[in-house]
Amino acid sequence: MQDMAEQILAGNRRALARAITLVESGRGDHREQALALLESLRGHGRQALRIGLSGTPGVGKSTFIEAFGCMLTGLGLKVAVLAVDPSSARSGGSILGDKTRMERLVRERNAFIRPSPSQSQLGGVARRTREAIDLCEAANFDVILIETVGVGQSETMVAEMADLFLLLLAPAGGDELQGVKRGIMEMADILLINKADGDLKPQAIRTCADYAGALRLLRKRPQDPEGFPKALTVSAIEENGLEKAWEEMQALNTWRHESGNFDARRAAQARFWFEAEVRERLLARLTREPVKGAMKALAGQVEDGALTPSAAAEELLREHLMME
Amino acid sequence: MQDMAEQILAGNRRALARAITLVESGRGDHREQALALLESLRGHGRQALRIGLSGTPGVGKSTFIEAFGCMLTGLGLKVAVLAVDPSSARSGGSILGDKTRMERLVRERNAFIRPSPSQSQLGGVARRTREAIDLCEAANFDVILIETVGVGQSETMVAEMADLFLLLLAPAGGDELQGVKRGIMEMADILLINKADGDLKPQAIRTCADYAGALRLLRKRPQDPEGFPKALTVSAIEENGLEKAWEEMQALNTWRHESGNFDARRAAQARFWFEAEVRERLLARLTREPVKGAMKALAGQVEDGALTPSAAAEELLREHLMME
Repeated sequence: MQDMAEQILAGNRRALARAITLVESGRGDHREQALALLESLRGHGRQALRIGLSGTPGVGKSTFIEAFGCMLTGLGLKVAVLAVDPSSARSGGSILGDKTRMERLVRERNAFIRPSPSQSQLGGVARRTREAIDLCEAANFDVILIETVGVGQSETMVAEMADLFLLLLAPAGGDELQGVKRGIMEMADILLINKADGDLKPQAIRTCADYAGALRLLRKRPQDPEGFPKALTVSAIEENGLEKAWEEMQALNTWRHESGNFDARRAAQARFWFEAEVRERLLARLTREPVKGAMKALAGQVEDGALTPSAAAEELLREHLMME
Repeated sequence: MQDMAEQILAGNRRALARAITLVESGRGDHREQALALLESLRGHGRQALRIGLSGTPGVGKSTFIEAFGCMLTGLGLKVAVLAVDPSSARSGGSILGDKTRMERLVRERNAFIRPSPSQSQLGGVARRTREAIDLCEAANFDVILIETVGVGQSETMVAEMADLFLLLLAPAGGDELQGVKRGIMEMADILLINKADGDLKPQAIRTCADYAGALRLLRKRPQDPEGFPKALTVSAIEENGLEKAWEEMQALNTWRHESGNFDARRAAQARFWFEAEVRERLLARLTREPVKGAMKALAGQVEDGALTPSAAAEELLREHLMME
């Protein structure tokens, strides 16, 4: 593990890929190795800008990541792209699975693209993604893009791992604007209205103005300077507006660093994930023997009416989970 | 407790009210007494029909309960009315708090009305309501109406406690029909379109037809005979359609008893609540000393970057929660 850690710190891509595979593994011995690796990587002092990116299918996420990622590598920055796709855990599919949709970025020396793990247990997605982020940060990437699809809790999860959160949107009629859930709007730092090109350009500009108006109605957040969150138009295909978007991200990031918000947010996120992991692993006891079997037997008695739900819960907690 | 149990079994209202206050209490000694009481009441063999009722504010729930409850007592049935209002736990208010809105029912000898407990801890609302239901059943009520407001998880909670679930709706334009969440529609056994009186009557009839059409699009559920779930119009103010609604409830209830679905559902519900209570109480360990303090100290180290979230979780689980 010490060897692997040194290779990662030296920027070895193959070691990084192997390390991510290790943290994604469900095997007990792999888990021990992964924890040892992460421990030996602590204190490297490197800090990437972690950018979360969400958007519904069809909005142009892959094209945007390709264009934005190439622009960043063109500026000499090292870019890692990770994906969180809870649906792939069930379907076996994965976003970013088709790397050919990013054929330019995938060939860039300074880019590293990692598809969402498929067939993984849903509960562990967050932990594995956080650990993959840590590994990329240790490998000295400047920007880590974390892509997710606009479904369920995955956006909240990614927002809790990212320093900045981008929401990619398509040009839309005024009525459709309401379709974006308020909660998602409130998580976003920058809304990017994509497809501001060709026939859709006027509509993209109008949509952007509509969103800008909606954003002004939100209460100002303590983590934002004047003017944020904001809405911008981009064209991933024509590669327009990407520099401007990057400038805004840097401006926001600089402000948050100087105001202390950046560090405060990272600290709060670390605490959030610590508490989430404790809860998750505590509940996981119920799905392992011997508790699992005892719970099943008591559930049978509850179904038969021999025990009330509360009395059975009391017995399980006292006898099998060492609680008073 | 034995004395109180005998009084409840004899149908003493004052004893029932005191017993419900006891199960609602958060005090440790009260909790012990409540469990002893519930245990001594087990095996009475009485079975009420538990009817869940939901509907957004303004739809006429109080008026419906008043009219429907009086109709039932008029048939010689004993009726208990309970309320679940998660919002009252925060606001301190409560539904059914104003009993004067049911001034006829409140005077009925065969009716018992219990407002939602206010200022209770949210987590325990489900357990207290279940226990209040058990107490009413022991007190030989024929029908237990459990009212809830159409917000958050309270409808799911009530549906998991009820034998039948009613959704009270207002007459609406065709567009508004979509406003009823699909999940709620799928929980309901009977949709009651209220206010089928005066000027609103034609609209109520149209709305009922619209909902009936929407219900036909839902997949048939194994717990339903042909024709269910169904939509009916009622007028709580003019007391029209209440007998018809009660007939349909009885038809559905009879079918479920004969098909074995009634018992199967009660068994599944008991199992559900057993498992939910185990999870809830297991997690409650984290909010009590000494775990609470240890968790806080570790969270501080995580915020400072001295420990990773995973390493801190590992330490808390191993040292303070006796997990490997």
